[in-house]
Amino acid sequence: MKKHNYSAGPCILPQEVFEKVAQAVLNFNDSGLSILEISHRSKDFVAVMDEARALSLELLGLEGKGYQALFLQGGASMEFLRVPYNLLKENGKASYLDTGTWASGAIKEAKAFGETVVVASSKEENYNHIPKNFEVPSDADYFHCTSNNTIFGTQMKSFPTTNIPVVCDMSSDIFSRQLDFSKFDLIYAGAQKNMGPAGVTLVVVKEELLGKTGRNIPSILDYEKHIKAESMYNTPAVFAVYTSLLTMQWLKNQGGIPAIEKINEAKAKLLYDEIDRNPLFEGTAVKEDRSNMNATFLLKDESQTETFDKMWKEAGISGLPGHRSVGGYRASMYNALPLESVQVLVDVMKKLEVGS
Amino acid sequence: MKKHNYSAGPCILPQEVFEKVAQAVLNFNDSGLSILEISHRSKDFVAVMDEARALSLELLGLEGKGYQALFLQGGASMEFLRVPYNLLKENGKASYLDTGTWASGAIKEAKAFGETVVVASSKEENYNHIPKNFEVPSDADYFHCTSNNTIFGTQMKSFPTTNIPVVCDMSSDIFSRQLDFSKFDLIYAGAQKNMGPAGVTLVVVKEELLGKTGRNIPSILDYEKHIKAESMYNTPAVFAVYTSLLTMQWLKNQGGIPAIEKINEAKAKLLYDEIDRNPLFEGTAVKEDRSNMNATFLLKDESQTETFDKMWKEAGISGLPGHRSVGGYRASMYNALPLESVQVLVDVMKKLEVGS
Repeated sequence: MKKHNYSAGPCILPQEVFEKVAQAVLNFNDSGLSILEISHRSKDFVAVMDEARALSLELLGLEGKGYQALFLQGGASMEFLRVPYNLLKENGKASYLDTGTWASGAIKEAKAFGETVVVASSKEENYNHIPKNFEVPSDADYFHCTSNNTIFGTQMKSFPTTNIPVVCDMSSDIFSRQLDFSKFDLIYAGAQKNMGPAGVTLVVVKEELLGKTGRNIPSILDYEKHIKAESMYNTPAVFAVYTSLLTMQWLKNQGGIPAIEKINEAKAKLLYDEIDRNPLFEGTAVKEDRSNMNATFLLKDESQTETFDKMWKEAGISGLPGHRSVGGYRASMYNALPLESVQVLVDVMKKLEVGS
Repeated sequence: MKKHNYSAGPCILPQEVFEKVAQAVLNFNDSGLSILEISHRSKDFVAVMDEARALSLELLGLEGKGYQALFLQGGASMEFLRVPYNLLKENGKASYLDTGTWASGAIKEAKAFGETVVVASSKEENYNHIPKNFEVPSDADYFHCTSNNTIFGTQMKSFPTTNIPVVCDMSSDIFSRQLDFSKFDLIYAGAQKNMGPAGVTLVVVKEELLGKTGRNIPSILDYEKHIKAESMYNTPAVFAVYTSLLTMQWLKNQGGIPAIEKINEAKAKLLYDEIDRNPLFEGTAVKEDRSNMNATFLLKDESQTETFDKMWKEAGISGLPGHRSVGGYRASMYNALPLESVQVLVDVMKKLEVGS
């Protein structure tokens, strides 16, 4: 039976990517060698890395605008550390918006480095909304935010206008919607949602931002060293970069971000309409801040949990339970999840209503 | 034609691993899902991580001896930074042995942290040997060495006896030979030689060593945090960990380290005997320090380069050119390279001699 994979990440990727990459594990580019056994310095892999770096900028509309793309290791959590190391001046100040578990992880790493101001937080309301009307200090070295909060199902719909550099963790919604990406100075994203498998992180950084802190930056954390080495300062995660390239190529063939955004909006509308219509369910995030990637919702009557869980599992759905911080359910609808899978979930929700 | 892959890393892995992992990309454990789209918190992947951690300790003979195994991201270069963060006290001192490019990279990162003593170096002789008769300062926080030097083709055959913790970068010879691994307090190894694909690093650490520096360690660099989270502090490199597990299972089925060591010795003997016998070639490393993993050698008469290169390429050999720091050739003979492939290379060397 076809699976409908709602996993929050690592998550569904396009089926054609699975097929191409499985083939490359056996025989990459008809070389007679596996993608897993070739040198990262081989001509074929250097071409993969170059294309992946260029295509990520192209998809974001950032070619020729002074940005560099890197494919690094360590996950977004490693960028929580690289960001202050590279941008927070010795006696400077950082500013952060606290919208969830990952935002607060980023804040924690920054605090170990220097003065870190939290401009606003929705923690007291269990992060069920995005704070508004906060002020970004104009004397901070940068402002950091998290565009989508996987666990709590919220998403920033607008970003503050400020004179200081804007840094954004886009791990869970990169490549999913149109934004003016040139308003951001540094974007990073763990691959394992819309870009590829776990094990690689995309970092897109405006080059002019770097080299200004006066800090002694450890080599492996220094964006400038990675840029100079064309993202091969040390052996990159070859397989994860290649799979990310295939996924980005797939996205480009779909029509890029404008085309996938329409589909993502249709998927989200289909599900949220049902959550709001069906008297058995309720959403957990404030409506205006609802994420198009992760819809979090509850059964109003918990005694129906067992019945509902049985029904969606029988329908081939997996990965639906919510994170322990919120409970209930979380439907992650990343780029590769087809509209058809959302329809299957909505049908199960309707069936539960009729049966109860 | 069958390829004989001498790549220095990423490098050859067992064919059965390629086949199993290609299948898992399409359908992992008959779940109907790809290994690339399952949650790292799923029961099936938690079992992979647990087995990988346990099996790495078992292969090294370190179960029940107070060690913890972690599968982290960032390559050995990230451990160059994690080691001083976790072990070098605020006003302490580190000691390092300089045996090559990677050793000196580790030294550079340590120097940014505190006093770092280089106990000996073979740099002046282009790292063609392992320094001997050096003294390890008994008041240092730890002693760091690199067991095998991929670029220069040297390997430490013995390790100093000292009262301070011994840290060893075993990236390029882990799981290849028998050692009393309990003499080491911290071992780390980038996977991409004998363990798996690029994108994951094995760290084996004696737990009692940690938490003693008085330093404020960034979370993502803190071994204690990774241990507490059972190597899932953040999303691990799922695919690379799974492929490493399959490679370790293959090794166990071969008879573990004792069995593979015999084969590795036979491969190295076959090649070095030919390098020494054949008047056209000479080795670059001092004989007593020659690596069983990477044999570096030169054509005495460079004008034969074109002929030789054509011959080994026609024989299906790939990845033989030496690193630019040494020139000539480098035959990397990791665990998965069959003896048969070494015989093919030796035959080509003999053929060149006869033909010239």
